[in-house]
Amino acid sequence: MSSQKESSNIIRLAHGAGGFLQEELINFIIKDIAIKKISNGIGVEELDDGATIPLKDYNQEIVITTDGHTVYPIFFPGGDLGSLSVCGTVNDLLMMGAEPIAITSVIIIEEGFKFDTLEKIIHSFNLKAKEANIAIIAGDTKVMPNGSLNEIIMATTGIGIKDKQIKILDNGLKIGDKIIITGSIGDHGTALMASREGLNISTDLKSDLGFLLEINNILGFEIKNNYIHAMKDPTRGGIAGNLNDWAKKSNVGIYIEEEKIPIKKQVTAICDMLGLDPYNIASEGRALLSVDPQFAEVILKKIKSTQIGKGAEIIGEVKSENPKQVLLKTIVGGTRFIDMPLGELIPRIC
Amino acid sequence: MSSQKESSNIIRLAHGAGGFLQEELINFIIKDIAIKKISNGIGVEELDDGATIPLKDYNQEIVITTDGHTVYPIFFPGGDLGSLSVCGTVNDLLMMGAEPIAITSVIIIEEGFKFDTLEKIIHSFNLKAKEANIAIIAGDTKVMPNGSLNEIIMATTGIGIKDKQIKILDNGLKIGDKIIITGSIGDHGTALMASREGLNISTDLKSDLGFLLEINNILGFEIKNNYIHAMKDPTRGGIAGNLNDWAKKSNVGIYIEEEKIPIKKQVTAICDMLGLDPYNIASEGRALLSVDPQFAEVILKKIKSTQIGKGAEIIGEVKSENPKQVLLKTIVGGTRFIDMPLGELIPRIC
Repeated sequence: MSSQKESSNIIRLAHGAGGFLQEELINFIIKDIAIKKISNGIGVEELDDGATIPLKDYNQEIVITTDGHTVYPIFFPGGDLGSLSVCGTVNDLLMMGAEPIAITSVIIIEEGFKFDTLEKIIHSFNLKAKEANIAIIAGDTKVMPNGSLNEIIMATTGIGIKDKQIKILDNGLKIGDKIIITGSIGDHGTALMASREGLNISTDLKSDLGFLLEINNILGFEIKNNYIHAMKDPTRGGIAGNLNDWAKKSNVGIYIEEEKIPIKKQVTAICDMLGLDPYNIASEGRALLSVDPQFAEVILKKIKSTQIGKGAEIIGEVKSENPKQVLLKTIVGGTRFIDMPLGELIPRIC
Repeated sequence: MSSQKESSNIIRLAHGAGGFLQEELINFIIKDIAIKKISNGIGVEELDDGATIPLKDYNQEIVITTDGHTVYPIFFPGGDLGSLSVCGTVNDLLMMGAEPIAITSVIIIEEGFKFDTLEKIIHSFNLKAKEANIAIIAGDTKVMPNGSLNEIIMATTGIGIKDKQIKILDNGLKIGDKIIITGSIGDHGTALMASREGLNISTDLKSDLGFLLEINNILGFEIKNNYIHAMKDPTRGGIAGNLNDWAKKSNVGIYIEEEKIPIKKQVTAICDMLGLDPYNIASEGRALLSVDPQFAEVILKKIKSTQIGKGAEIIGEVKSENPKQVLLKTIVGGTRFIDMPLGELIPRIC
């Protein structure tokens, strides 16, 4: 009894893994916050991709998103800590329907870390910011004594701007909506696991890390404003975490079909080998969209015309049955619930 | 030769300590940034307390500041990681002449950290945000495996708003300005050192950690807009780092008088004992102001009428002689240069 109490009093890796325990930790953190939003904006309680700051007598609003980046190893197939930090931040702003304009960075470095290596990370960060055409407007650098931090981590805040009328939110799903995924799932987390020390897997699998800018640009204002009801990048917790979050916040049932979900053979193989569920695994360059069914095919076609979205598919739809649940129609014809992951034990995935 | 090259290729603690080496590291980090500001705003290159985001056809602008918080121990006399994170962020916004409206937080926790302890830090953070009347609008939480991070660190971004016409910047000092400090120097860093394990000093010295809100409120728009040319909170690098920064950016000489600088006896004693220079030691609830000489006494009186500013003093003035230098008139009558600290070796001070 006492040891059970003791173990429930400690933070576990799963508390940071995008699943049920993460949700529990976040609720614990925000429960006694006095002011959770600015006027009628989106705030911390909505747990969306970012927050909004409506401005008086102004038709646009500021969108803010913040993230810690603790990925390990800091260089992985398809990216590094620097590029991941920018892509993750920019994508979060895009998922709110905002145009990214700026980023800030906090860099925390272990004493003894090599300047050469830092230069590579910084260069990668700066280059990605340039690619996204955003300004790096502020930063802070701290050094921690040798042994008190493993190598280097970052924290970024993204600043975007959007028309007040655009509302692309987790609670925006409508009955009948089609669910689109912009490409194969789980590449990032699986590639990272495969590259980790001790896992001797030979594969050309790379992280899907990338900007969703091209998709954002091709969709344009009209479509975003009228036909896209929700957008989210399935990072920690994978599509299982993402879809369960949507189902709960929008009070709808989400039905997806296993055979429609794009997934690479290597991802399936590595996940099988490691006993991981690819639906729980992070992507870093993918988006899920919930869209008006009448425009789903048009939107899909537009997304498929981009480089990053060429593997897009419609994978399911939104129903009134089984609200707050996610159901999977399996290839063999059965149906099962996809649960919010408890929090898989892959540390430092992003 | 090779060992010298080797040692110059590593990040040292002093690179994070607010002195010359920190400056070197920051210049290294920002040198290849493509876009360093938004339109005619303040950006990363100005290395001020924060950045500004001017909005088209709007008379106000957004002010953004970001900071990593790695203080150790996480509970210290006068504060903790949570209260320090909010105060530091709010004060940076105030130092830009902005009204703080919101904060975001990234919390990075070591696996195995106690929930009870986390609750104390979070509660302290939330309480301070409430005191400052700011919203906590977004956050992120990561957990790192046991041994890869010592306990817990935070990163915050502050969001403020200000009239476009208010320009309180590091390069704003004018010849003839009076320099005001709002209270005794070095309390935070010295109290932290005294409380660190191994230092067995019995003292009632506390960190000066606190909001500069009361001072901001009593000064008001007219004074801030017309008579305050620069404001800065001397955290890392202390007043030596702060004043040298101003002298360089404003191309002026700053003359200060040793006997005017408020400093507690315990601070002097502990610094003597540890071989530290109190001018290099961080405060967390003090501001330096460079103000119009005609209004210096009025401003001083207003500041002294507040609780946090009751120990304020005019400590010097701005001259055209010795540009980019800081000179100290000592109590015994001599004059010496106060250099930018190289970066003292007090890790995790803030």
